[in-house]
Amino acid sequence: MRTITTMHNVDGGLGAVKGLQATGIWAGFRRNPARRDLALIVAPPGSTAAGVFTRSNFAAAPVLLCRRHLAALTDSHAESHLSPEAGATVNAGDKAETRGFRALVINSGNANAATGSLGMEVAEKTCELTAQLIGAEPEEILVASTGVIGVQLPFEKFSNGLPQAFATLSAGERGGIEGGRAAAEAIMTTDTVPKMAARSFTVPGTDGSDVTYTVGGMAKGSGMIAPHMATMIAVLATDARIEQPLLQQALKEAVDVSFNKVTIDSDMSTNDSAYLIATGAAVSVAEQAQQDGTPCEFLQPNSAASATFKAALIEVCQDLAYQIARDGEGATKVIVVDVEGAASDDDAERVARAIADSPLVKTAIAGHDANWGRIAMAAGKAGASFKREDVSISIMDMEVLSLGLPVAFSEEEALKRFAERDEVHIVVNLRAGTARTRIWTCDLTKEYVAINGDYRT
Amino acid sequence: MRTITTMHNVDGGLGAVKGLQATGIWAGFRRNPARRDLALIVAPPGSTAAGVFTRSNFAAAPVLLCRRHLAALTDSHAESHLSPEAGATVNAGDKAETRGFRALVINSGNANAATGSLGMEVAEKTCELTAQLIGAEPEEILVASTGVIGVQLPFEKFSNGLPQAFATLSAGERGGIEGGRAAAEAIMTTDTVPKMAARSFTVPGTDGSDVTYTVGGMAKGSGMIAPHMATMIAVLATDARIEQPLLQQALKEAVDVSFNKVTIDSDMSTNDSAYLIATGAAVSVAEQAQQDGTPCEFLQPNSAASATFKAALIEVCQDLAYQIARDGEGATKVIVVDVEGAASDDDAERVARAIADSPLVKTAIAGHDANWGRIAMAAGKAGASFKREDVSISIMDMEVLSLGLPVAFSEEEALKRFAERDEVHIVVNLRAGTARTRIWTCDLTKEYVAINGDYRT
Repeated sequence: MRTITTMHNVDGGLGAVKGLQATGIWAGFRRNPARRDLALIVAPPGSTAAGVFTRSNFAAAPVLLCRRHLAALTDSHAESHLSPEAGATVNAGDKAETRGFRALVINSGNANAATGSLGMEVAEKTCELTAQLIGAEPEEILVASTGVIGVQLPFEKFSNGLPQAFATLSAGERGGIEGGRAAAEAIMTTDTVPKMAARSFTVPGTDGSDVTYTVGGMAKGSGMIAPHMATMIAVLATDARIEQPLLQQALKEAVDVSFNKVTIDSDMSTNDSAYLIATGAAVSVAEQAQQDGTPCEFLQPNSAASATFKAALIEVCQDLAYQIARDGEGATKVIVVDVEGAASDDDAERVARAIADSPLVKTAIAGHDANWGRIAMAAGKAGASFKREDVSISIMDMEVLSLGLPVAFSEEEALKRFAERDEVHIVVNLRAGTARTRIWTCDLTKEYVAINGDYRT
Repeated sequence: MRTITTMHNVDGGLGAVKGLQATGIWAGFRRNPARRDLALIVAPPGSTAAGVFTRSNFAAAPVLLCRRHLAALTDSHAESHLSPEAGATVNAGDKAETRGFRALVINSGNANAATGSLGMEVAEKTCELTAQLIGAEPEEILVASTGVIGVQLPFEKFSNGLPQAFATLSAGERGGIEGGRAAAEAIMTTDTVPKMAARSFTVPGTDGSDVTYTVGGMAKGSGMIAPHMATMIAVLATDARIEQPLLQQALKEAVDVSFNKVTIDSDMSTNDSAYLIATGAAVSVAEQAQQDGTPCEFLQPNSAASATFKAALIEVCQDLAYQIARDGEGATKVIVVDVEGAASDDDAERVARAIADSPLVKTAIAGHDANWGRIAMAAGKAGASFKREDVSISIMDMEVLSLGLPVAFSEEEALKRFAERDEVHIVVNLRAGTARTRIWTCDLTKEYVAINGDYRT
């Protein structure tokens, strides 16, 4: 068996994923026609999808609907596996499935949250219309929204916008790198840049010839947003062919070590969602020669190929998570908090979050102040098990606290490093065990307060 | 039995408490001689004291020392109660005790935190010197510090300052209202005003004549402070005579519903401390006529008098807690968060803290934005048990969310109330049970970021 080739960066975000079509247009959810606000992502028949969602009690209508649709699709897959004689089935190599994921529709400008049964109706009608346009069932469609909370989402923007979006896909005007970018732009709210990432890796297929798989994704920033705004949304996709349970597990694992490790202002929104789509459109070199459109074989759980897929997915998710931290509202620095030597995973997490969520740590860094006292204070309040006299802290590779006592360091050198670096790395070693974690956040500036404190207009 | 008279406000903070002497001077911990930085509070023999302290793993030297001294005093009391024949004992009516609280020394400008064994030595020597000056044992002295973390506290400031402070007390130049105020000023850091409160109440004594008791206190602000600064400190005192266990219990109960309900930036410091001193110097009208200096009788646990004492203590603590919230760094509004109808006390607390600690809620209020969406978001993320469709929210007495759906409200009226009111009252009713709580905080302004983000100088 040959060695798996190294993973590499590729351009285009979702647009780099074979079989996926993506676009973003202006549909009128925002007033400014120069701002895209409707993303449409279409996958070929036989695709699978997974999702993880906000745990907020105020989860928005699209979140509730997606949970329902994904459950229906999962049941459908499970049934067809259990009784392969019943209808078109989902076994490896088959072209058709009973039902599978077909499209994701995302609007920005309105979160469809706290909108009651009317909001749910709009989400349902959006799925029906999309299903009609692409020739699918409503349960094969997922929806997401981000923007103002508590304002009814006007369905007519979808009834006007979706045919237009679909037409650009059919005409081949979008899709590929351009389409991936348009979709990433359409989901932005106070984000200052669209966020995209993609990785490819090559593994030997069972027919002996190489298969190159791609994992691509896009995300929009966290940081709850003025006025009444919400949401972190991430859409990941791969052209590997992956059964739903493995897909769901891979997404959960990747989100836990990426998006769930970013904190901008400690606030979780009503609409936070992450999706993972698998098109199965990658083909081996041998298959490519045949060009018969046969979907590639399923990734086998616990195989080298599925492990590499998970690694690529984690890389893409962490890349996007980092972009979210870097684009935090008003942020001038990414802060990377590493906690080492914790007595337990839970302790590591508590200490890292206490530091990353401390307004005092975040304002100190905004002010270029290597204020280890505040880091120690935040670590001390976390309720973790460690002794003061065991703790060491470094900031930007300068040791500032050693075994509980301050270390003299050059303030001048600290100011120099603050000026030179976009990233402030904090390492806290508790010397209480072997657990560790990493959390990403950003500094807290006057601009954050300005962005979030402006009068509603 | 006659009715207990109504409690009433009195002036002077600690200075209103009979038997207590207080002063505040400049001892050189700060550079500016116009800023007092050393408070000395002296109680008569036979006094008792209680303390509650930060749970931070980085608890400062004075905190560690106070815990030790209070434990020694408590043991001493317990022993003398168990064997009243051994030495001068602590029974009701006795003039002398084996050992009891005698003085509290507080400096500002330096927190004596992260200062290792040298820092502990300075705290111990401070107790020794104070004991010598007033004729007491070192364990009868408590110390507290607030200010810069990680810088050694110079003992010579105490050896110069304490005799001076003691001299002002002996000469009668301080004490009373003036002394209480000077002490409150001496513990300020970034506080913009000294914080004092006092209440008196009159109950019938066992000799049949009325006794008027006073509870007074002072506090310094929370909000961790630039640069490397720390600490909420509260000192409460009463002229009732109270045994240590009841005193400790009363302090804990009062702190739980006052200082522990204030959150400025969710940060707990290395030095947070609250003290409660009981001098026993109140006298009944009958005793006053005799003027023999006999200390008053002990307050009996579970008596009407001790219940009234607890009520007065809670009032004084809540008054000081409110002053801390109002004086939060950069704050323009006090925010009072009431959570009602929670399924449990824990749920009420989680939801109220999620709202009070949310930078998005706090920046919205700084911007005069009645942004119920952010309040709902914060409530939703708290992990409490309730249903979206049961929740109602009001802001400044305007209902903005009813049973999970937005209520149209006049933006103009909201702006008018923001302009007129110093306090923004948020009420969240979860309709999931009967538990409730109240948390105080303040808004998050650009000035907070400026205060906490300035370069160290």
